[in-house]
Amino acid sequence: MAIVHLVTPIITEGIRCLDDVKPLEKFGIEIRHSILDAGPASIECEYDEALAVPDTINKCIEAEKGGADAIVIDCMGDPGVRPSREVVSIPVLGPMETSMRLAATLGSRMAVVTVVDGVVPMIENLARIYGVTERFAPVQVIDLPVLEIEKDLERTKALLCEASQQAVEKDRADVIIFGCTGFLGCTDAIQKHLAERDLSVPVLDPVPVTMMHAAAIANLGLSHSKRCYAPPRPKEIKGYPVGSVA
Amino acid sequence: MAIVHLVTPIITEGIRCLDDVKPLEKFGIEIRHSILDAGPASIECEYDEALAVPDTINKCIEAEKGGADAIVIDCMGDPGVRPSREVVSIPVLGPMETSMRLAATLGSRMAVVTVVDGVVPMIENLARIYGVTERFAPVQVIDLPVLEIEKDLERTKALLCEASQQAVEKDRADVIIFGCTGFLGCTDAIQKHLAERDLSVPVLDPVPVTMMHAAAIANLGLSHSKRCYAPPRPKEIKGYPVGSVA
Amino acid sequence: MAIVHLVTPIITEGIRCLDDVKPLEKFGIEIRHSILDAGPASIECEYDEALAVPDTINKCIEAEKGGADAIVIDCMGDPGVRPSREVVSIPVLGPMETSMRLAATLGSRMAVVTVVDGVVPMIENLARIYGVTERFAPVQVIDLPVLEIEKDLERTKALLCEASQQAVEKDRADVIIFGCTGFLGCTDAIQKHLAERDLSVPVLDPVPVTMMHAAAIANLGLSHSKRCYAPPRPKEIKGYPVGSVA
Amino acid sequence: MAIVHLVTPIITEGIRCLDDVKPLEKFGIEIRHSILDAGPASIECEYDEALAVPDTINKCIEAEKGGADAIVIDCMGDPGVRPSREVVSIPVLGPMETSMRLAATLGSRMAVVTVVDGVVPMIENLARIYGVTERFAPVQVIDLPVLEIEKDLERTKALLCEASQQAVEKDRADVIIFGCTGFLGCTDAIQKHLAERDLSVPVLDPVPVTMMHAAAIANLGLSHSKRCYAPPRPKEIKGYPVGSVA
Amino acid sequence: MAIVHLVTPIITEGIRCLDDVKPLEKFGIEIRHSILDAGPASIECEYDEALAVPDTINKCIEAEKGGADAIVIDCMGDPGVRPSREVVSIPVLGPMETSMRLAATLGSRMAVVTVVDGVVPMIENLARIYGVTERFAPVQVIDLPVLEIEKDLERTKALLCEASQQAVEKDRADVIIFGCTGFLGCTDAIQKHLAERDLSVPVLDPVPVTMMHAAAIANLGLSHSKRCYAPPRPKEIKGYPVGSVA
Amino acid sequence: MAIVHLVTPIITEGIRCLDDVKPLEKFGIEIRHSILDAGPASIECEYDEALAVPDTINKCIEAEKGGADAIVIDCMGDPGVRPSREVVSIPVLGPMETSMRLAATLGSRMAVVTVVDGVVPMIENLARIYGVTERFAPVQVIDLPVLEIEKDLERTKALLCEASQQAVEKDRADVIIFGCTGFLGCTDAIQKHLAERDLSVPVLDPVPVTMMHAAAIANLGLSHSKRCYAPPRPKEIKGYPVGSVA
Repeated sequence: MAIVHLVTPIITEGIRCLDDVKPLEKFGIEIRHSILDAGPASIECEYDEALAVPDTINKCIEAEKGGADAIVIDCMGDPGVRPSREVVSIPVLGPMETSMRLAATLGSRMAVVTVVDGVVPMIENLARIYGVTERFAPVQVIDLPVLEIEKDLERTKALLCEASQQAVEKDRADVIIFGCTGFLGCTDAIQKHLAERDLSVPVLDPVPVTMMHAAAIANLGLSHSKRCYAPPRPKEIKGYPVGSVA
Repeated sequence: MAIVHLVTPIITEGIRCLDDVKPLEKFGIEIRHSILDAGPASIECEYDEALAVPDTINKCIEAEKGGADAIVIDCMGDPGVRPSREVVSIPVLGPMETSMRLAATLGSRMAVVTVVDGVVPMIENLARIYGVTERFAPVQVIDLPVLEIEKDLERTKALLCEASQQAVEKDRADVIIFGCTGFLGCTDAIQKHLAERDLSVPVLDPVPVTMMHAAAIANLGLSHSKRCYAPPRPKEIKGYPVGSVA
Repeated sequence: MAIVHLVTPIITEGIRCLDDVKPLEKFGIEIRHSILDAGPASIECEYDEALAVPDTINKCIEAEKGGADAIVIDCMGDPGVRPSREVVSIPVLGPMETSMRLAATLGSRMAVVTVVDGVVPMIENLARIYGVTERFAPVQVIDLPVLEIEKDLERTKALLCEASQQAVEKDRADVIIFGCTGFLGCTDAIQKHLAERDLSVPVLDPVPVTMMHAAAIANLGLSHSKRCYAPPRPKEIKGYPVGSVA
Repeated sequence: MAIVHLVTPIITEGIRCLDDVKPLEKFGIEIRHSILDAGPASIECEYDEALAVPDTINKCIEAEKGGADAIVIDCMGDPGVRPSREVVSIPVLGPMETSMRLAATLGSRMAVVTVVDGVVPMIENLARIYGVTERFAPVQVIDLPVLEIEKDLERTKALLCEASQQAVEKDRADVIIFGCTGFLGCTDAIQKHLAERDLSVPVLDPVPVTMMHAAAIANLGLSHSKRCYAPPRPKEIKGYPVGSVA
Repeated sequence: MAIVHLVTPIITEGIRCLDDVKPLEKFGIEIRHSILDAGPASIECEYDEALAVPDTINKCIEAEKGGADAIVIDCMGDPGVRPSREVVSIPVLGPMETSMRLAATLGSRMAVVTVVDGVVPMIENLARIYGVTERFAPVQVIDLPVLEIEKDLERTKALLCEASQQAVEKDRADVIIFGCTGFLGCTDAIQKHLAERDLSVPVLDPVPVTMMHAAAIANLGLSHSKRCYAPPRPKEIKGYPVGSVA
Repeated sequence: MAIVHLVTPIITEGIRCLDDVKPLEKFGIEIRHSILDAGPASIECEYDEALAVPDTINKCIEAEKGGADAIVIDCMGDPGVRPSREVVSIPVLGPMETSMRLAATLGSRMAVVTVVDGVVPMIENLARIYGVTERFAPVQVIDLPVLEIEKDLERTKALLCEASQQAVEKDRADVIIFGCTGFLGCTDAIQKHLAERDLSVPVLDPVPVTMMHAAAIANLGLSHSKRCYAPPRPKEIKGYPVGSVA
């Protein structure tokens, strides 16, 4: 049994319905969840991300104290993943890193399908750091702000279907990654759309993908390298309750 | 419950003791195992690998027919992984690919510690294909043929300890990957050696690492992209019983 | 006088007509040829390739014993090139490696024009290992199985003309490489088609290109590095007559 | 006349003495300066950086409102550079990015000489994003926490001399970058040390280097691309006074 | 006050009107200028460039002797930049190198808009050496020889507008670089055209950009590394008056 | 029979003794040779190279007019190779490009052994353009000016032996490239030295290697792509007799 704690790094309540990940429980995963007390309503640019990170770190610290075996950050910008690894000893996984590495395993050319133009350079920088640039099809943008994803879920799915089809047909992508964790639960519709057009490829739903990997790593008794993610030196910190950690 | 089938791509009986992976059963993995009927006694060069691949493919086909949910090839050259993906629909994972991607997640600079000089160019080519070249510390070679690993296991561990220490101290590696699946079960000794010198880093034991990932991927209902690994066209094949598959 | 032995790594008799390479004799090349006894009828995926390799190695060993000065493998997947280099001391050249390096010398952006979708990821992986990814225009696929190339040679040439024109006009390729050695002898038609449209670029016919380079390397008294391609260690091998070599 | 505003992204008063940059005034630069109200006492890891970013963004917004023509962030982790570019329209420069690009212009192989081991992976990730990985000599670490730099400045300089000499003599670096803006003003000592050993190379003092470049860019009437750094969409933000910006 | 000497590496008088850079004087730059006595009328290929380089080096030597603080070569092929750095001690900057590095700072994906097809491979090779290949949108060619740029300046601007729009709209470029210094002074028209279509991005006019950077580097007291650009050894040189330098 | 014209791009008579390449005649190569009328006595930096290029181009034009089938430039900086390709239609090969590509074919890691420090950045830039950076062991420098190579040939060979041994033993190189064509004829001594230490690797003597490849390419009826190396547009050229070509 592995306790995987999902930290949704925004303040918006109710946006993450755990029903979609509940099926993972049958694989021996106990799911816990936090949202932020301080931060933005959604993450769509570097600025939003910057404001999300401090309390995300807090929530990771609390998750470890609460007994979690692994942590997953619920945002495709992987905000706070690296600093959190410095302050906890359990594995902290980002869904973009995990999805990109899995996509590279499952196929030869991945396409990220995402919300708005503003996140494209952020995604491309993550691809540089994770080393998958060379296998990267152009990012597909459906031009839909995060907080509107659930307003008309059928329209969202239709946009995702169209963008995914483009990526496979025109850009020769052979794996699709959802570029926003807000698309959780939409894989079936896309798979069906692609299958009907003889364009089937794996479509990665980053939150369940990353939670399963987090559990696997925790069960293996592994975590990130402390020679890479060394604990912060103690020092004065103003303006943050988290200052007490270091 | 996921059935993970381990294919040891050599003819040598008894070299793979399943006791070392038995602990994985408690994570809901049923372990199955095959060795080859045709192939080499061990794999230490491209030639050995070439002779191992055809029957490895056979064993993958049989594993799928036998009800496996995922397959792991038990060799760090990842022999037969790509052709097998063309003929089965369940995930087939190579331990080098899986370990390299995990190492890139857990740290910033990985070192492979392996058996003999002859496999170094093979490992470097895999790093090129898997896209981790830039995070690659020099491969450490302990100069011990595969079939001698178990002859004096204490000596093997001592060599692994020394090579791993070199990689961390001198080459700034922050994750160690065993470069031969024959080192299965040796992580504890290396971890202890490194910890005593304040050089602790994650040490990846590729077989359990890959089996856990294979189970996770199977449980997620995912497999490799058939647009990347298309099934072979039917055609005449001479000299192989496997010819009947296509 | 250099004896260059061409190993066609399939079992299909008559597919390789030596008339097309006969003109090379005037440059001091004695041409010898083998096809396989065990293997597939054609190579169109990793599976086919895997089954071709063991007997390809055999044929290389026999070619060296027979007095050849250099060996060329007659398939653009370069199957068996690396393992064969371990067991013979004369140069073994793959036509994809040789053509890619020559294309990089003759121009700035190469396009491979090939048979079917299934070989594209294989070709891209070879480009990664050979280091030409950055100069790679998208692979052009004419969607014609290998064994149908000669059924209607005029149609084959027409498809090659169209694909090559696309590569030059749309993708800015300035060198064309045939992505299947089965296109042997088709360069004149493509050159003419391109010249008539003021789109002339070098079109590489991989078999003669590679045979000439193999002769040059042999005449220089050079061969591959044995520190890179070390001879296999002796060990038991089951199910292969070649087992006796090591 | 260009007003360049230096934002020192820590809370420690007095650490940045403007005397060292005063000479820039003769080149038509008016220097302004802020430190943080909320954040860490120094930046030595990703965690420190994460806590520095939100108020750094604030200070950039205030700097622009106050009439600055360009902003320089006073830390070699380039914290907050990218999010700040989204919320201001004047150029925001990071000293690591600017120094790395200048070093690539002035020589062929750069070495960063920095404070502690913990920042090495951060620096290497910046090198990946800025595209200079291939020209990167190993980072030299003098093992001195930021807040101790000024405690014994002679010792600091001696450590910098030794590390720079190593980089030039042993690693063939031909340009040195200070990896901490806290080394401001130490170039003369290092230059002298290297010159006496016939090892002279340019030694980049990142703060003046970046302030001069910031003024040049502002004077040219240029700023970052708003198609890359789009303004944040308005949304609810909790726990930050900066929330009002968006 | 920094004296920046502009060397226009062609023999054509009157093509470089200094009026366009005159505004830089208000930033403390004294502008000096030379054209060649020996060389081509314009530079549009490697051959033209080769003939421009020897006298360009002469003009750099003279510029330094004349008291210049920095030199800018007035051609986007950066001809003579590297050899000139070996024979002078003041900074010598190429406008392509400087513009590419600035474009990488200001955005995430740059497009070069240039004169004729023949210079595209030269530009791509410079991108390789400067390390920006990965952020490179396809070069846009307006198919206008250098000496015709000023014949119908309105047509030139119209072609630049169209090409820049293509680069932003179709290729997702977020910074534009003029690929010929002959386009000096055309930025306003392009900026206006893009702004009217809501496609504003920075448009870099390489000569003023590079002169401002040259002044900044000179004012900082920096120059290129002599360990990278070592002075030539004295030796006999025939056919060149410059032979006397070495 | 292929006529291969060797252009030695310096003015020093007698430095290139054709006896060393005479053995190539038995492979059907007719050898012709030119040295420069205008240029430097030797090439050891970018400045020397710049002065060598214009007359090298002349000599290439004359060589083609004289009936040559292919041209080889006799210097490891490959000076004038690219501009010459624009003005002749026969293949022009550089020995560094040809040797680097052959080394990549024969092994996995190449080391260049060269004369002086000053050429190292030039060689590294060529490696960038030719795409072999990743397979590059550190360049070994024997610190011997070009014109002293033949003064004490035994000492030269001893230095080459030592440097090559270093490259193989310490840097794991498995192919050696002479980094100066002045080392012509020294391979036997190095091969013997390495063989005696059980360190045998291929040692490439660039002039014969490149002449054989040039003949092979010419015999195949191939040459460089005119879409990459377009002929110069006609224009006024001052100060060069070659001006008449364009």
